[in-house]
Amino acid sequence: MRGVPAHIVVPRTTPQCKVDAVKAYGGQLHFCEPTMEAREALCAQLQSSTGAVLVPPYNYGPVIAGQGTIALEFLEQVPELDALVVPVSGGGMISGIALAAKAIKPGIRVVAAEPCGRNRSPDVALAKLAGWVVPCARTDTIADGLQGRLGDLTWPVVRDKVDAVVVVDEQEIVAAMRLIMERMKLVVEPSGAVGLAAALSPSWGAAAVLRTCRRVGVVLCGGNLDLAAKGFWDLWLPPKQPTEGEQQ
Amino acid sequence: MRGVPAHIVVPRTTPQCKVDAVKAYGGQLHFCEPTMEAREALCAQLQSSTGAVLVPPYNYGPVIAGQGTIALEFLEQVPELDALVVPVSGGGMISGIALAAKAIKPGIRVVAAEPCGRNRSPDVALAKLAGWVVPCARTDTIADGLQGRLGDLTWPVVRDKVDAVVVVDEQEIVAAMRLIMERMKLVVEPSGAVGLAAALSPSWGAAAVLRTCRRVGVVLCGGNLDLAAKGFWDLWLPPKQPTEGEQQ
Repeated sequence: MRGVPAHIVVPRTTPQCKVDAVKAYGGQLHFCEPTMEAREALCAQLQSSTGAVLVPPYNYGPVIAGQGTIALEFLEQVPELDALVVPVSGGGMISGIALAAKAIKPGIRVVAAEPCGRNRSPDVALAKLAGWVVPCARTDTIADGLQGRLGDLTWPVVRDKVDAVVVVDEQEIVAAMRLIMERMKLVVEPSGAVGLAAALSPSWGAAAVLRTCRRVGVVLCGGNLDLAAKGFWDLWLPPKQPTEGEQQ
Repeated sequence: MRGVPAHIVVPRTTPQCKVDAVKAYGGQLHFCEPTMEAREALCAQLQSSTGAVLVPPYNYGPVIAGQGTIALEFLEQVPELDALVVPVSGGGMISGIALAAKAIKPGIRVVAAEPCGRNRSPDVALAKLAGWVVPCARTDTIADGLQGRLGDLTWPVVRDKVDAVVVVDEQEIVAAMRLIMERMKLVVEPSGAVGLAAALSPSWGAAAVLRTCRRVGVVLCGGNLDLAAKGFWDLWLPPKQPTEGEQQ
């Protein structure tokens, strides 16, 4: 809007729809390998060659503070909330929300919703259980926006301010996404549906601290759903895949 | 909500997601053949056997008046609108909107958006051109919510109050639906995207009366998108259909 060039570093596995949207909004895309190391290296290189200011995705005070405004909006609209459910990845959003929500309403529960992944690697749940950030394999999940890792700023907040982590499986994520799209008429990506998946999961009731929560706010975040991506429909339609003959 | 039974008569071709939603909301479904005659016959039969009050879908004063409130909302939020674009089928919604909008702001343009269909049967455009309701084949279109026919209450309003009809093809509908889902993050069914398709169509500029309209309100109506229906994806992915080998 102010004519400042925006360089956007994304992994080469980014959904095409997100790539198209960044281009359409005038961002300059730079692709890296899908690892933290590759991302950080490319960002450093761009900073030194262009003089650009780095805006880290989550482990960064101003970003955490900005995401805290989600809690302000929730509590302004529904002051009687018992809990807020937030999908967790690097922990920026949930840190901001937990800090803001508990400053306003100390009794509110803040719940992290996390995909278990096909490789059973729910790193935030494991970190909370262990009390330290256990090294984990990258979570193998359709919730591809939730593959970040807790940072040195976000982990202490998640450790101290998040009341529970609810872990969901792939089918719970797809079912929640479907419910959101079919009934609420909103497009969310799998990562964005993980909060609702958690609130509807049997694991929710298993956490004693959540059993008494009646009014639950769920953050639906992320709508970069690549409807044209084949992987999505394999999951959406598991029972009856059309055969090649039927498609013609 | 008041415990009054609701009998819902729908054609047997209704998308499964709509059927599921009616059931989940407690409606009692009754299926008929997908013709006006079959629908009216089944409605009459249900009325006589249950004593239920008929709520016709569009050719009915209270329904038209209710849909007029859409115009009130638009003009309340954006008083400077030059035009409103409304998908047209039986003409109930556009009649209500045209009557209400022009009562408040006589200079506003009200534009009908209509699918041409694969059988080139845009009945409203033809009726407006001819000045009478030309008998037409049922429009063969993915916009399956726009296959109604003008009624004796709606036709005079469409004839006298609608400024232009913009006719769109199937690919324009899919492109608009895709834009709405990918950028606005809203789920609309094909019928609901026809208004945006019209506003973005080259045909829009062809209508002299619309060329000066700068601020255009578009009604996005209908979100009963059957994401699991195979026909949808055939249209969504025309360039590269996955082969059976790729799907495994």
